[in-house]
Amino acid sequence: MSGNLSEHGLINALFAPLAAPGGLGLLDDAALLKPSPGYEIVMTVDAIVSGVHFLHDDNPGDVACKALGVNLSDLAAKGAEPLGFLLSLGVNDAWSQDWIATFARGLGAVSTQWRCPLYGGDTVRAVGAPFISITALGEVPEGKMVRRNGANVGDYICVSGTIGDAALGLFLARGDEPAWATSLSNADWQLLIMRYHRPQPRIALAPFVRNYATAAMDLSDGLIGDMEKLLKASGVSAEVTLENVPLSQAARNALSNDATCLDTIMCGGDDYEILCTVSPASYTKVVTTAAAAGVEFHRIGTVTEGQETPSYSYNGKPVQFAKPSFSHF
Amino acid sequence: MSGNLSEHGLINALFAPLAAPGGLGLLDDAALLKPSPGYEIVMTVDAIVSGVHFLHDDNPGDVACKALGVNLSDLAAKGAEPLGFLLSLGVNDAWSQDWIATFARGLGAVSTQWRCPLYGGDTVRAVGAPFISITALGEVPEGKMVRRNGANVGDYICVSGTIGDAALGLFLARGDEPAWATSLSNADWQLLIMRYHRPQPRIALAPFVRNYATAAMDLSDGLIGDMEKLLKASGVSAEVTLENVPLSQAARNALSNDATCLDTIMCGGDDYEILCTVSPASYTKVVTTAAAAGVEFHRIGTVTEGQETPSYSYNGKPVQFAKPSFSHF
Repeated sequence: MSGNLSEHGLINALFAPLAAPGGLGLLDDAALLKPSPGYEIVMTVDAIVSGVHFLHDDNPGDVACKALGVNLSDLAAKGAEPLGFLLSLGVNDAWSQDWIATFARGLGAVSTQWRCPLYGGDTVRAVGAPFISITALGEVPEGKMVRRNGANVGDYICVSGTIGDAALGLFLARGDEPAWATSLSNADWQLLIMRYHRPQPRIALAPFVRNYATAAMDLSDGLIGDMEKLLKASGVSAEVTLENVPLSQAARNALSNDATCLDTIMCGGDDYEILCTVSPASYTKVVTTAAAAGVEFHRIGTVTEGQETPSYSYNGKPVQFAKPSFSHF
Repeated sequence: MSGNLSEHGLINALFAPLAAPGGLGLLDDAALLKPSPGYEIVMTVDAIVSGVHFLHDDNPGDVACKALGVNLSDLAAKGAEPLGFLLSLGVNDAWSQDWIATFARGLGAVSTQWRCPLYGGDTVRAVGAPFISITALGEVPEGKMVRRNGANVGDYICVSGTIGDAALGLFLARGDEPAWATSLSNADWQLLIMRYHRPQPRIALAPFVRNYATAAMDLSDGLIGDMEKLLKASGVSAEVTLENVPLSQAARNALSNDATCLDTIMCGGDDYEILCTVSPASYTKVVTTAAAAGVEFHRIGTVTEGQETPSYSYNGKPVQFAKPSFSHF
């Protein structure tokens, strides 16, 4: 964390209020962190780039929410409680001090909400589009991090919340007019766009994940593609009944307007929900525990033997996906 | 650490060999780390951008060396031993797979050399210039991290290695023909350019720093500006004798060609040496301990009372600096 004078001024004025005690007021070269006794550190890094992961004219507070949220979503899916984060911010000459100030305030708000303070940062000059890279740190009781590779044959495949809202919301946020959107209510539009702009990491579910999930990951690149990664890591296959994938009323309305948006819903990404596998014996307990944390959990399939692509059905008919994951490349 | 299929392929093929055991083969959403008993985690983040912190046609192995080196330099200056790092890589459409492969091999080489394995990463599409952001993690015995704010009146101000080589090397690397360079030997050119391209973090000095330094930081933005930051953080001033600042023979030759390059040497940055303060009682021990680790340590001044700008002299004459730090903004 080197700092020239301009950067130093920026950091002091805008980001210092976000600093954790171990962040030393962001005034030193490094920060200090110690996990609780009996815990270990869980770490993840995710970067977002203007024009790729968010839109140039997005509200800076929304961008802050996304930049931190996508990282905390990874921690939650591993069963970890957030401890803090480090920020790397690339700003170009066209970005205003106002933008950065609003971004910093937004970051402060979600950092407080999610109890995840700032430990350190580096602000550099970007050439081209601005970028934000965040390293998030959390902790789990030793040996309790939930990996992708623990799914057992017979386990139920479950997802939190609702799927596909953000992927639909992206179309609306960038001003497209897809067929499925024509008769949506204003409230439906707002919900879908909000789900795209402000991912809500399922931090409340972290204890639930580490107590019940045999395998887990967060959904960022599309339910189908991400599920296939988890199953592959576990060396298993699955039978998935797509009509059981939980949808918001807005997504249901879109789907009834135009059935072809099922692909976007299932493969579009940006859900930041938790996908996990649980044993049939614990399923009821899982649903009630999640409900107590204010989150719905739904069973969408069953883990089966084998390494082939899972079999997908929708109301009894087989379905195939040409492109299971969203890709920026 | 989300991953679409292309990214997944890249990470697997190129970066997996660099992974720490806790990095889980870079195949999960997060990584696991635990400090040694009685130790705490020290964290730092530094980003570098093509066209700002390195040159577009720099050797990718050199870029890797710089990206990791500047972070490990921060850890060493805090007295911390490296544990590992997380990588955020932004690549644009013009960057070739070859570039990334060479970068990954170079990163693997310095990661092995400096015993600092990879814990996780995210590869994203950059719009404009490529960027590399690294979060490095280290550990120190609890309570032993050395901060910037501990310098005491009467302490000796010391620096490791030699100062100014990289700042001079930058001029040569980008093809400028400054007056001071005209009569330099080929060997001098090579040394200065190498010092710019391949910073060598003073990892071997970490135990020395935590045992003897009252305050410390790494030198990234220029000796004068960085020293003023350390003194300000400690609430003290200093008397500095610039003729005692250690210079390589190449820098001495440059200085004798053109005395005005003193500014570049003292304020140009990219040194990645350690600046620290030590008590007079421990100074002799300090010099011999550093020498045993293969590094020269030199006293360049004395900490004095007060909060004013330090007084600088060069062979008895007072000197002032118009721009004590290099800035990319």
